[in-house]
Amino acid sequence: MASNKIKVGIVGGTGYTGVELLRLLAIHPDVELTAITSRGEAGMPVADMFPSLRGYVDLAFSDPATANLNACDVVFFATPHGVAMSQAQALLAANVKVIDLAADFRLQDTAVFEKWYKMPHSCPDILTNAVYGIPELNREQIKSAQVIGNPGCYPTTVLLGLAPLLEQGMIDFSAPIIADSKSGVSGAGRKAEVATLFAESSDSMKAYGVAGHRHHPEIHAQLTQLAKTDLQFIFVPHLIPMIRGMLSTIYVKLAAQAKTIDLQALYEQRYQHERFVDVMPVGSLPETRSVRGSNQIRIALHNQADTGYLTLVVVQDNLVKGAAGQAIQNMNIMFGLPEAAGLQVVPLLP
Amino acid sequence: MASNKIKVGIVGGTGYTGVELLRLLAIHPDVELTAITSRGEAGMPVADMFPSLRGYVDLAFSDPATANLNACDVVFFATPHGVAMSQAQALLAANVKVIDLAADFRLQDTAVFEKWYKMPHSCPDILTNAVYGIPELNREQIKSAQVIGNPGCYPTTVLLGLAPLLEQGMIDFSAPIIADSKSGVSGAGRKAEVATLFAESSDSMKAYGVAGHRHHPEIHAQLTQLAKTDLQFIFVPHLIPMIRGMLSTIYVKLAAQAKTIDLQALYEQRYQHERFVDVMPVGSLPETRSVRGSNQIRIALHNQADTGYLTLVVVQDNLVKGAAGQAIQNMNIMFGLPEAAGLQVVPLLP
Amino acid sequence: MASNKIKVGIVGGTGYTGVELLRLLAIHPDVELTAITSRGEAGMPVADMFPSLRGYVDLAFSDPATANLNACDVVFFATPHGVAMSQAQALLAANVKVIDLAADFRLQDTAVFEKWYKMPHSCPDILTNAVYGIPELNREQIKSAQVIGNPGCYPTTVLLGLAPLLEQGMIDFSAPIIADSKSGVSGAGRKAEVATLFAESSDSMKAYGVAGHRHHPEIHAQLTQLAKTDLQFIFVPHLIPMIRGMLSTIYVKLAAQAKTIDLQALYEQRYQHERFVDVMPVGSLPETRSVRGSNQIRIALHNQADTGYLTLVVVQDNLVKGAAGQAIQNMNIMFGLPEAAGLQVVPLLP
Amino acid sequence: MASNKIKVGIVGGTGYTGVELLRLLAIHPDVELTAITSRGEAGMPVADMFPSLRGYVDLAFSDPATANLNACDVVFFATPHGVAMSQAQALLAANVKVIDLAADFRLQDTAVFEKWYKMPHSCPDILTNAVYGIPELNREQIKSAQVIGNPGCYPTTVLLGLAPLLEQGMIDFSAPIIADSKSGVSGAGRKAEVATLFAESSDSMKAYGVAGHRHHPEIHAQLTQLAKTDLQFIFVPHLIPMIRGMLSTIYVKLAAQAKTIDLQALYEQRYQHERFVDVMPVGSLPETRSVRGSNQIRIALHNQADTGYLTLVVVQDNLVKGAAGQAIQNMNIMFGLPEAAGLQVVPLLP
Repeated sequence: MASNKIKVGIVGGTGYTGVELLRLLAIHPDVELTAITSRGEAGMPVADMFPSLRGYVDLAFSDPATANLNACDVVFFATPHGVAMSQAQALLAANVKVIDLAADFRLQDTAVFEKWYKMPHSCPDILTNAVYGIPELNREQIKSAQVIGNPGCYPTTVLLGLAPLLEQGMIDFSAPIIADSKSGVSGAGRKAEVATLFAESSDSMKAYGVAGHRHHPEIHAQLTQLAKTDLQFIFVPHLIPMIRGMLSTIYVKLAAQAKTIDLQALYEQRYQHERFVDVMPVGSLPETRSVRGSNQIRIALHNQADTGYLTLVVVQDNLVKGAAGQAIQNMNIMFGLPEAAGLQVVPLLP
Repeated sequence: MASNKIKVGIVGGTGYTGVELLRLLAIHPDVELTAITSRGEAGMPVADMFPSLRGYVDLAFSDPATANLNACDVVFFATPHGVAMSQAQALLAANVKVIDLAADFRLQDTAVFEKWYKMPHSCPDILTNAVYGIPELNREQIKSAQVIGNPGCYPTTVLLGLAPLLEQGMIDFSAPIIADSKSGVSGAGRKAEVATLFAESSDSMKAYGVAGHRHHPEIHAQLTQLAKTDLQFIFVPHLIPMIRGMLSTIYVKLAAQAKTIDLQALYEQRYQHERFVDVMPVGSLPETRSVRGSNQIRIALHNQADTGYLTLVVVQDNLVKGAAGQAIQNMNIMFGLPEAAGLQVVPLLP
Repeated sequence: MASNKIKVGIVGGTGYTGVELLRLLAIHPDVELTAITSRGEAGMPVADMFPSLRGYVDLAFSDPATANLNACDVVFFATPHGVAMSQAQALLAANVKVIDLAADFRLQDTAVFEKWYKMPHSCPDILTNAVYGIPELNREQIKSAQVIGNPGCYPTTVLLGLAPLLEQGMIDFSAPIIADSKSGVSGAGRKAEVATLFAESSDSMKAYGVAGHRHHPEIHAQLTQLAKTDLQFIFVPHLIPMIRGMLSTIYVKLAAQAKTIDLQALYEQRYQHERFVDVMPVGSLPETRSVRGSNQIRIALHNQADTGYLTLVVVQDNLVKGAAGQAIQNMNIMFGLPEAAGLQVVPLLP
Repeated sequence: MASNKIKVGIVGGTGYTGVELLRLLAIHPDVELTAITSRGEAGMPVADMFPSLRGYVDLAFSDPATANLNACDVVFFATPHGVAMSQAQALLAANVKVIDLAADFRLQDTAVFEKWYKMPHSCPDILTNAVYGIPELNREQIKSAQVIGNPGCYPTTVLLGLAPLLEQGMIDFSAPIIADSKSGVSGAGRKAEVATLFAESSDSMKAYGVAGHRHHPEIHAQLTQLAKTDLQFIFVPHLIPMIRGMLSTIYVKLAAQAKTIDLQALYEQRYQHERFVDVMPVGSLPETRSVRGSNQIRIALHNQADTGYLTLVVVQDNLVKGAAGQAIQNMNIMFGLPEAAGLQVVPLLP
């Protein structure tokens, strides 16, 4: 009966990207949830840990050691860095596709990976064939990919925000690109840590990772590839007292030729067929809540008149377009499903 | 093409219950949104006011005076009290069903209505035939109703929380029933008021309406009807710094016969076929976020051992099961649709 | 120069009650901060952990093993339960007074202590002479006390809320006293735990400890003592998404004689000379933010007309009057200082 | 007895800067609160509107028309733009000093004022002698000033953040200075508006004023004066779901000579005698809560190594150093009081 549904496994189902995959996949019309693993919680019904899933997910967490992931069509890794690369070989051998929501397959340069993630890369050959999973940039490669490195949350905002300019050579690289990004606290994950306690992070905000954030090299590598030239990139992330939501304010110096064209039209044209990229009308200032719970990303352009700079404001839900939603969008493409299958979620406002 | 879809009109689409109806109806498989009125915003595309609806709702607000509501199959009133009763007669004459999310059709006793809402009731005859719209209590009458008085948010929690006890005579009415209820700020509506500004209501809480809240007579009337006897009822609502969510803690003195039966089993049996009522396992303490954005209501029972009292903890999303979701559930029943159509929304957690 | 200042030590300065003691004592005119211990952070300047104290506290955390607490006049324990009782004997022998903000000296019945705190009580003789530190109830004993059991946060609201009624025999004990209490998340302490992460506890609320909370026996014992009779007490605490603030809604059945007197006047008279207890005008509904950061507690009375019940609404800052502020108030009394010394803090609103 | 205290009047005491002045002045040792006016609330005790002030402020609001402000030594205007300039002449004639917390005396160029505030400037002669009230920049002029234009909240962060660089010629003006600023919602004032309702602005964030914010010309004018040259300035403010707190992330291109000196030392030296400016240790990332309720401003420097840019992170409480606290600091200087009188408030953390 469910035989023509895609069998999905999730490794590491107890964090925020894991439960978000479950929220979305539970009602995906073409998916059959087959296994959800958790080392620490094996045997516990998933809905006992996340009562929001009562009535939607009947599975229990299974032990990673014994879960029959090879019977899946695709396995999502919602795990710490390093797990996916340790299991990818075996899954691929069993003809199971892999979508990693951690960083194992995001950075083609293994030296950079090892510098930032403090571990050797155990399968550089698989990495070579992995596809960086932003559908709006790499759709064709994703169609035939066996392994997806699902992007970090921040990179998705910066890359989709800048792609039209980069593709058309509209940026003057004599000045650095500056991304001042802001994230809700769920971006820090579901780990017991003092810094992200309610009483520590509510009614307050801060910058962090200014000396170096792991998404900097990831963004820098992709920007360079899009620009087909080297460039300088400054990235300052901030922690904001909201659960979900990410907003990047991006400052770029426009190239001379940018001043003679209609940038708003350029963006609208570039993304006109993209279901999940919304170029906002001129003058808009998108709120993060306008995408809460959805796979939408919204972009607004603001010319800083006299300075020759353009300011971009980009919002997304860090757990959806910034993680689980984009991963499912990738899955849909890999399996020839409608790209929006299971992702027709109206944002929750208020 | 859309001919066999239900044509839906919404009067008053700019408040929170209005936009919540839109969020849910926009992807309801059996509904065609036909008209959304707003006196103040006529002509403005709905998605300009609520960018969360971009790509989902293409309608513009129309002028209430000229909107052709008579062409609808059903009209929801997401308006202040008094509007629905002024238009119900004409709509019914045109064979349009009416679901009022305000109080016009909640209180059968017009004297009580007039005392609490400070206006005369203009159509007591229609009121007589109106049905109080809690499907789990009044499903049969809803099936054939032309007019639904959709319950207040607080009443839904208290009534579904107590119904099994009241139906089975398990409460000792020598003590008052006490409901200590807590609501997120969206319950106060989308009106510009100082008291519900972020800087006033964040990081703080208060009781309100202790001297008399409009939901007190509504709950009291329904409790009395369920109990088939008079009873005393104390109700203290509180304002909590969260957007959505409602939790009622209810204290009742158990009747002697209650001590000999399994109340947990009583509840599980009473609600076993109810899709939207979840009796939690023994010992559970439901969080409001476990129902965020969904039509679910969750109930947990806690015996206060030595005292002979039972404490009930009931949670719902005040805008969904407490308003728009329940209204759509009522609509589904009135039109013979699957009761959960358009309401299969997994709660948003985190 | 500072020779006539009181030398103060704090054991366990890294939790919320510890940093709150530091905030208040740093500018207390009659106090010299002498030692702050922390097993885990010995050597670290206090202001490195809490930059809010930069310029106000120059001390570093010292090792509990080597800190010369015997040179202090008084030592506050802002530690987990069990620490104060292990050190009290030695301090008392050195003529150092002890104020414990944990539970070691709150419960005179050691069997009850051991049941709820799962550890034997190691110094019952000291306990016998310890004073329960609510100045408005026990001021005379506090003056000469060597050891103070500083009350739990919830008990302070319930006991000061009910004391005037209990002292005057105004409660009908045929019904249980019900306290429905709500606390900000800082009440859970500064421990790395998933349940109190921002993304878990923001924009949501829940009841907890319904099956049994440690403050139940503490409150019950004190209520019984004030009432001079046994009574039944139901206590349901709730976790609210705010940093600080506690609100207890208390429901009591009035005795017959209560109906013939002016309860508002009774309260105003009882507390007329109490600097930190504010009986609000008739009809008031205090917000927790009205006491944010201050040692104030505010009480409002609401008659539930027909039912014979009185509802009390009591607010305090759980970290101040509910913990550190009350501890300092006790210290002031013990050392003959003006009771409000160092506690003249205007609440932070907004 | 109070004869040698400074008599203070406040015009417009019902907004957030007004109540913040009251919070701080209520316990200022050298101040006697003499009059607080409010057109709308004349006759109402101040503490009825703001119960946080019960026991601290006994005054009632008085009618602006009849309040004897001429008997004051200084009058603060916590009013909308335009009020102070309409009353300044008469007060100065009566030898009363004026501190305006609105914009009437901030912009020396009346054409710029009129463009941004849409009203003519009614007393340009007084403006000429008004002093821009940042003590750390203009202390000498403040000492003898009769009229202070108290700075906007954003400008204080940007100007104190950049002053050491500008004074020493350390910025390369071939690139624009970029200030990406974030403010808590109290910055929007205590006006009933939909956009700042809790349910609109909680758990979400947005940029605003990108097309032009009134603080842009104010900051630009002061930057130009400090730089002694023209320069380009990009300013993007954001609204953050917190009550208080402001964080500005500032990006500047360093001049060649900046690379040979120790910028951290430059800052520490520049501000070494400034009680309210805290240059954080190298590597620090200040949180807004570390200044909550206090007059402190904290600055951290971060070199963006390869790019030749410096990133500054500056935090303050927008209502204190960004408004009322700085106004009192100015008053202290004008009257020869200790500069920190009444401002020794330890930040409220957590």
